[in-house]
Amino acid sequence: MVRPIGPMKLALGALALGASLFLLAARSVSAFEGVVEKKVFSLPSFTTDGGATIKNLRVGYETYGTLDAAGDNAILICHFFSGNSHAAGRYSKDETARGYWDAVIGAGKAIDTDRYFVVSVDTLANLNTKDGRTVTTGPASIDPDTGKPYGMRFPVVTIRDFVNVQKALADALGIRRFVAVAGASMGAMQAVEWGADYPGMVDRIIPVIGVGLEADPYLVATMQLWAAPIRLDPHWNGGDYYGRAEPLEGLAAAMELVTVGARSPGWAGRGFGRKWAEAGKNPAQAFDNRYAIEAFVDKAARERARQYDANSFLYLTKAVQLFSVADRLKRVKSRILFITSRSDLLALPEYTRKTIEPLTAQQVPVEYYEIDEDGGHVDGLLHIDTMSETIRAFLDQTP
Amino acid sequence: MVRPIGPMKLALGALALGASLFLLAARSVSAFEGVVEKKVFSLPSFTTDGGATIKNLRVGYETYGTLDAAGDNAILICHFFSGNSHAAGRYSKDETARGYWDAVIGAGKAIDTDRYFVVSVDTLANLNTKDGRTVTTGPASIDPDTGKPYGMRFPVVTIRDFVNVQKALADALGIRRFVAVAGASMGAMQAVEWGADYPGMVDRIIPVIGVGLEADPYLVATMQLWAAPIRLDPHWNGGDYYGRAEPLEGLAAAMELVTVGARSPGWAGRGFGRKWAEAGKNPAQAFDNRYAIEAFVDKAARERARQYDANSFLYLTKAVQLFSVADRLKRVKSRILFITSRSDLLALPEYTRKTIEPLTAQQVPVEYYEIDEDGGHVDGLLHIDTMSETIRAFLDQTP
Repeated sequence: MVRPIGPMKLALGALALGASLFLLAARSVSAFEGVVEKKVFSLPSFTTDGGATIKNLRVGYETYGTLDAAGDNAILICHFFSGNSHAAGRYSKDETARGYWDAVIGAGKAIDTDRYFVVSVDTLANLNTKDGRTVTTGPASIDPDTGKPYGMRFPVVTIRDFVNVQKALADALGIRRFVAVAGASMGAMQAVEWGADYPGMVDRIIPVIGVGLEADPYLVATMQLWAAPIRLDPHWNGGDYYGRAEPLEGLAAAMELVTVGARSPGWAGRGFGRKWAEAGKNPAQAFDNRYAIEAFVDKAARERARQYDANSFLYLTKAVQLFSVADRLKRVKSRILFITSRSDLLALPEYTRKTIEPLTAQQVPVEYYEIDEDGGHVDGLLHIDTMSETIRAFLDQTP
Repeated sequence: MVRPIGPMKLALGALALGASLFLLAARSVSAFEGVVEKKVFSLPSFTTDGGATIKNLRVGYETYGTLDAAGDNAILICHFFSGNSHAAGRYSKDETARGYWDAVIGAGKAIDTDRYFVVSVDTLANLNTKDGRTVTTGPASIDPDTGKPYGMRFPVVTIRDFVNVQKALADALGIRRFVAVAGASMGAMQAVEWGADYPGMVDRIIPVIGVGLEADPYLVATMQLWAAPIRLDPHWNGGDYYGRAEPLEGLAAAMELVTVGARSPGWAGRGFGRKWAEAGKNPAQAFDNRYAIEAFVDKAARERARQYDANSFLYLTKAVQLFSVADRLKRVKSRILFITSRSDLLALPEYTRKTIEPLTAQQVPVEYYEIDEDGGHVDGLLHIDTMSETIRAFLDQTP
């Protein structure tokens, strides 16, 4: 894989340039070509943050690039609430869709798979139980002790648990240290958690559209709102719905909250304005006549809900609520690149901004950037390309 | 009622001062003492914006102060989504609670009941059908044609309909023109609608925590989210629930969305932080253990829901979605005082800010102020006192 040598590389001078060319040559056989596969990591037993035991834990993961013999060129990518480990690449050469951060992960890109071994892992209680790709252990999994799905008997899991599963995988893969742990939204929480839990193993963290050091109480309330429609759906049935009618209406209503909450007026104005959903059906003339944006939100939420598990949605809202490293702030040593989205109405930039002072007060090097787009929270996914050079430069700094 | 004569008044000079003292003396018998009563306004037939007929329309209203013989000292106060016409005063001398804008409405206050005749009217489809005070005609009312509650057969009603009912009441009371029409949130929409519908009758409008000239498509989607839990509740039953189990769970979930949406991280941090709902019940240890903010939101929403009608909630979300005077912008002539709340996450200040340019471009005098508090949307109610002198000065300007 030949790629242009960018200005960053040239700035390193002749010696580094030579080394870089050598690495390129050495890796030419296994260079990341963009076709990826989901692998499975298993643990016979895992003890949660809360002291519960999960047997036969299985999670999916993907890797891009090659791990050095020293095990020290790895970068971990942690996924967002409704995401999974498909951060970059595609599953076959015919596929047009690519992983959500493909713009910054790949050969020659900001997170350069010619230099770094990139790993991404499906979380516990991952939402995407029905997409045919995600591998997760959560409330929809079979409890080996009963032979039936856990439902709400699955133990409470936390961001810290997601990190500990990733740590176990990293150990199994021979990763000695991470050049960086990066992630968007709930993935940013995992990056911060890594910084607090394994400070000696993480040189840098890149929390993107995150919430700082803990879930603000306002975010705790927001998660309560997201969870409510599922509990309202009579098909939810206390979480015991597997093998029967699922709470799809409630989950779709929950996904409407996620979909709108992650967007913005800029997005709504550009994409829909006050257009009607159907020509001739004026929303003023009948209660069920709708605006175009309503029809879109409804359809998008239902489509997403069909891939998801309702109980897992509840478990993830709980995990987000529980997120806090405020009590372990002093442990954080990693260099930090915070990236927020200016127009974010969900992970408000103020959540992140207020963490800069306590971190710099304890000599943690912190950089802060805002994605200057008007699309809301999802700009941390859709416009991550605008941060390419910022991320590249950050990774090149001495940790 | 003696009140200090403020600097504004002094600035008007000796002649005005004399006139003001004369008016004070003339009104001393009927001066507003803060005890108010709900009155009822009836219309045998009302034609909605959409062409439907509502028979035997009844709405409650309150007045504070005395109408001049010329009928030109009136100020109309329009209420917010979950509000009613109780804008100021109290229903008895024993009552401690006062109307929501009592801080700025009363003798000697910014909206001075010694000078102005203040009127406030319950909207159609008002939420508060069970509070024992509000009088409204909406989906919970009996349809005279069938003898049964309308339910979802009640016609779609709009902000413009609310204004037209107020106009009919104003005519009946002998009000020739309004010194100002003011309102918070959905009340701001009514104030703007007045400016567009009856420009010759309204000298000034004061939209507080409003959304500018129309419901932004993002707000249209937000209203869809608010409505969803009610439709999810099996007790909703297509709107036919009167006389049986009502969709209280769905309405409570909807009110959770309203409650949190109208607040802010500043409020959440000050009031709750990450405190647990109950000592010894760590939210990390069981799925149903909650944070204090969750318990508060749940309780507050349920208490509010008990006073409200679920169908009326749906009708108000529809009315908000339909709000737009963009097509009648050229008709607006009134002097405008826009007041937003800096930390508002619902009626984003940007909605109002972007309307300033088109209005000033057509020579409408516009002033814009932000309430500089961190409590969110409700600061337009809770901290309206910070705008007292701004409102007082605005009302004293030549229209």
